[in-house]
Order: sequence, then structure tokens, then C-alpha cells
Amino acid sequence: MKAARFYDQGDIRIEEIPEPAVAPGEVGIKVAWCGICGTDLHEYKDGPVFCPTHDTPHPISGETAPVTLGHEFSGVIDELGEGVEDLEIGQHVVVEPYIIGDDVDTGPDSKDYHLSPNMNFIGLAGRGGGLGERIAVKRRWVHPISDSVSLDEAALIEPLSVGYHAVERSGAKAGDVAVVGGAGPIGLLTAAVLKALNITVVVSELSPLRREKALETGVADYALDPREVDVAAEVQEITDGKGADIAFECTSVQVVLDTLMDALRPTGVLVVVSIWAERSNFDIHKLVMKEIDLRGTIAYVNSHPATIELVESGKIDLKPFITGKIGLEGLVDEGFDTLIHRNETAVKILVSPSGEGL
Amino acid sequence: MKAARFYDQGDIRIEEIPEPAVAPGEVGIKVAWCGICGTDLHEYKDGPVFCPTHDTPHPISGETAPVTLGHEFSGVIDELGEGVEDLEIGQHVVVEPYIIGDDVDTGPDSKDYHLSPNMNFIGLAGRGGGLGERIAVKRRWVHPISDSVSLDEAALIEPLSVGYHAVERSGAKAGDVAVVGGAGPIGLLTAAVLKALNITVVVSELSPLRREKALETGVADYALDPREVDVAAEVQEITDGKGADIAFECTSVQVVLDTLMDALRPTGVLVVVSIWAERSNFDIHKLVMKEIDLRGTIAYVNSHPATIELVESGKIDLKPFITGKIGLEGLVDEGFDTLIHRNETAVKILVSPSGEGL
Repeated sequence: MKAARFYDQGDIRIEEIPEPAVAPGEVGIKVAWCGICGTDLHEYKDGPVFCPTHDTPHPISGETAPVTLGHEFSGVIDELGEGVEDLEIGQHVVVEPYIIGDDVDTGPDSKDYHLSPNMNFIGLAGRGGGLGERIAVKRRWVHPISDSVSLDEAALIEPLSVGYHAVERSGAKAGDVAVVGGAGPIGLLTAAVLKALNITVVVSELSPLRREKALETGVADYALDPREVDVAAEVQEITDGKGADIAFECTSVQVVLDTLMDALRPTGVLVVVSIWAERSNFDIHKLVMKEIDLRGTIAYVNSHPATIELVESGKIDLKPFITGKIGLEGLVDEGFDTLIHRNETAVKILVSPSGEGL
Repeated sequence: MKAARFYDQGDIRIEEIPEPAVAPGEVGIKVAWCGICGTDLHEYKDGPVFCPTHDTPHPISGETAPVTLGHEFSGVIDELGEGVEDLEIGQHVVVEPYIIGDDVDTGPDSKDYHLSPNMNFIGLAGRGGGLGERIAVKRRWVHPISDSVSLDEAALIEPLSVGYHAVERSGAKAGDVAVVGGAGPIGLLTAAVLKALNITVVVSELSPLRREKALETGVADYALDPREVDVAAEVQEITDGKGADIAFECTSVQVVLDTLMDALRPTGVLVVVSIWAERSNFDIHKLVMKEIDLRGTIAYVNSHPATIELVESGKIDLKPFITGKIGLEGLVDEGFDTLIHRNETAVKILVSPSGEGL
């Protein structure tokens, strides 16, 4: 079968590799669509970060580079490993792409399996990936979805779960006012979850195209240009002088963090969703004097069922966030290049590893 | 009557001033003991910070310098203003020393009256202070205490409430392991609250005298010297490799904040209790990857009743934290000077404005 494999920084190859065997307790999946994530670009440009190198195997998967890429994917079950009896061939599924140690409690009440030692991701640190035609995944990480959700939309459930978990971390409740700093893919999908929970969303974003996307998809009630307006003052106006209840930092830019600190009401919650390469020059005195909670969030933990429900119920429409569809051969030239150089118009580009559906 | 009055930086005078009139809805209190707070020292050395200047009145109290100092005090009711019917002459009380706008909800369910606009403190921004022989205080801010609590210990209930609210902010529960960074007065009193709630307390503190105080008062189970040991590694050992559940930053020192971030388990909570004069060079990536909550805390809000209960029940013994007793005349030379220059041995110095009890 064909797969996109990460060898090293700047070296991704589309190759023929053997189909994976489906071991006991695993599910064989024919991949339908796989999204390109900012993390994939990061591995390509600056990596390996999550990917293993040629000589140091990942402690849990035991694999070294090359590894198959792709962790945002949907597909159809085409084989059931021994002992898997609660799923059926032909069922549509998405994957929660974790590589986690066998000794970690990954039960439905766990709130921290995603923070366990050496945690990593399918499609980055081994165990195949969604940028291959077929994959075998442990039953625990396979989530069935209704046929009412199209498989292309379903490929966005993984990044939507990131937004869902970020919103969970904020303690958001209906009627709250939220400010989202940055309307890239994760900012937009976080906003989509907020809107689905009946929260008023104010997006702050430099790019006019992204602001337009936030408004036309209906995930933002307000889309502000921080170069044109004082975002904190606008939020004061929108909230009758109270300030925002919650905020989401989706840019890893210092001035955005500062703006969100100002936009929040006392006792407000600021969730940091982005990956910061450097320390922050953080206004900790303001955190104290306003009794703000600054909360980190990474990936998701038992977030897929509720996220899938939001999509199945129609509360979130993922279609408008799909801005391109390509084949595996175009991954680097069409996919990565568009996202790196023309990322204002592109939200999510989907890849069909088999070429079907294009 | 005699009172210590703040005129300006470096200018505190012990003067004769008129006794305060007790207005309707107020309570007249003869002050028994008043503690010296780090905030008082700060006003003296670097102020005015909280205190008003000579020409700009505080927006709520309407007062300008000079103002009477002292906000950590106990006393005995000697007069009841018109309409105050649920207290009695002779009753022992402490004061929650707030100056808060009349339009703010200060009811028992409020979680944020202490963060209202222009909030300030009795004994800093007007309305008298505990470093005067007598004071008139609005009924709302007067908390009766049992005669079983001595009036000298009772003067420490105000700073203990700061620790109580910090612990509340952490979401601490019995059985947790907490790390307290810094064993000054607020660190020690925060540790005292933690121990009273059956939490294991690890103190990190440079000063051997303060470490000794933390151990001999029983508020710490472990007192570590961060120059001698790797505090995060020790905490790993104490918690069987799990990490601390909660941490309290009581120093405003960057390396202490970093150490606490390392000592915490994933999803741990770090409460910032100290006042930072500068921004922090904050490891926000670690906050994200460990899903830590960084929470600010300032003063107290509806915290006095539960704090008083901890003292009345005998769960917290405040006596060992009283390290000196002086008269009003010795405030600057004996009190401030000791705390500024020999603060390793001094925890809380109490002042008797009338001289009684010395």
C-alpha cells in the first residue's frame, strides 16, 4: 500500500509499504480522509520533534524513523482482530491517535492518561498513520461514528477534540462570553465548540480572511482586528463593563496573551491552547490582582465521545472548515506548501491516501 | 487617642488624634492587638502604594494622607452604632478590613467583592486602623470570635485568612501533598491551614531558622533547603514518583516558581500568593504540557468565618507565630526595623496601641 513516511527534517517520502497485520484486540481500518496538522508541518520544517530519529526508538512503540505520518483521520473498518466483538466490518470510525504505555489507566474516568510518561501519537511516533491506505489500531482508540457524518467531515473530529478539551478546561457554561485569540484551525474549531455550547464568542485575529471565515461559519459573534481596535475595551463594551468570562490563547504570541489577560473579568479563566517555543514574559501580578486562572491544555482525554456527539447532533458543521482535498502524491507540494505559504485561506486540507473520493 | 499615621514614604508619626465617632450601622472597637504586615513595611519603605497621597483622596473612603495604619487586629466592642443589634458590648472581635464601594454585593455567596473597583483596606486607605487605640467599623466587616481564642492570637486571623483563601483557591483536599515555596509569615500560615486540612506539607525555604520554625510548629512535614537538595526530585520521592498535587508560591522569586512547576504532578495546581513587582519569565510550555493551573489569589473573600472556626476548634494554634509584642511608640524602631533587618527570627510582631497587655 502507499504511505507518506517521515524520514527526517525536510525528508518525507511517498512509498509502497506492506499492509499492517491486525493483531488480537486491534481493528483494521481503510483510511478515508486524513487532515494535515500544524504538527506535521512542524516535523517537516523543524523536526523531528514528536517523531523518533533513525537511531533512538520511541520508548513505547519501539519504532525509529521512518514512520508513517497522519493522526487526523477517518475510515471504514475492514478487519476485526481476535477478541474485538463490539464493532462491525463496514462501520465508520475515527481514531483517538494515542501511543500510551500499557500500565496507564485509560479508562473512561481518567483525566490524565494523555499526560502519562512518553505519551505520543499514532502518525508521529509509530504504529502507522492516517497518511497510509490502511492502519491497524488498538480497540481502545477506535471510536465508531454514525453514517450521518460524512467521512471527510469526520477527519476533523480529532482537531475538534482539541478544541473540545480546551473548552472543558475552561469550565465554560452557557451564557458565558469567551474571547478567542487567533483564528487558525484550532482557534476556529475551539470557537465552534463554544458556539455549540451557547457561548458568545469574540475572536481577535489579524488576518481579514480568517476574521471573515470566523463570521461566515457562524463560530464567532464578533471578529475584531487588534490593530484597529482595543480588544479589551471592545470586550468591556460587549459585556457591559464586566469583562470576558473565559479566554483561549491560540497563537503563542505574547501580545495576544496580554490582551486576553486584560479582556478577562476578575476570576476569569485563560486557557493556553498553543505551543510556545519560548518562555512568556508573563504579567503574573495581574494574575494575582484579578485572581485569574491560567490553565494549560494539550490534546484530549476522554473527549472524543462528547465531541462526536456535537457533530452527530448537527450542532457543529465541519464542512466549511475543509478548504482542500488532495491525493497522497500532492502531500508536500500541494498540501504542506499551501499551508506554509498561503495559510490565510486554507483551514484544513484533507488527503485521500487511496485516491478514492477525489 | 494615640495612633500611628502614615504621612508619606519614610514618614510615619505616632500622634494624638480624636476618637472616632460610631455612626449608625457601625461598631466601636477598642483595639487589643495589631500585627505588623509586610504591606505596612512596603508603604513605609517604598510607598505610598495602597495609601492615598496628600492630594488624591481614595475614591471610596474619600481620605488623603495622613491615614492611620494597621489592618491585622483584634479588639473588644465598646460601642454599638444605631441599628446594630446582633452584637454586644464586651464581645471579642476581629475585622475583615475592607474598604469596598456601597454598590458591590458583599453577601455570603459573593466570590469576588475583594476584586471590585478601587477596593482597598482599612488601615491603609482610610477609615482608621488597628494601630490606633480605637476604631469604628461597619458591621459587615466585624467578625465576633469566641472568648476561647486569646486576643493576641486573634490578631493573626487576618493574615491566616489570606492563607485560607489561597488554600481554597488551590482546591486542596485531605490526603493531598502540597509544596509551599517560602516560609515567611504568609507561607507559614498557608502551611498551617494545609496541615489543619490533613494535607502533607513540604516547605522549601533558604533560611535554616525559618525551616526550623516550620518544623517545630508542626505546619510542615518536610522542610527542604533548595540550595542543598533538588526539591522537585525530593517531592517525587515523597510522592512515590507522582509529584505534588498543589503548590503555593510565597516569595515572588522566579527560581521558586520554576521549582514548583517541576515539583507538581500533571494537572497540578500552583497558587501564586506573593506580590510580584516585575513580570515573570514564565515557562508557559510546561504549563501546557503538564496541564497545570496557575491561579492568582489576593486577600480573602468570605473566608473569615471558616478561618475563625479553624482557630476556635483548636486545629490551628497561632501562638508560636507571635514572636514579639511592643507598644505604639516602638512601632518604627523596634517593629519595622526588626522585620526589615532581622526578619529570619521574627514572624509576627504585635502592637498594643493602648500599651495594655505589655
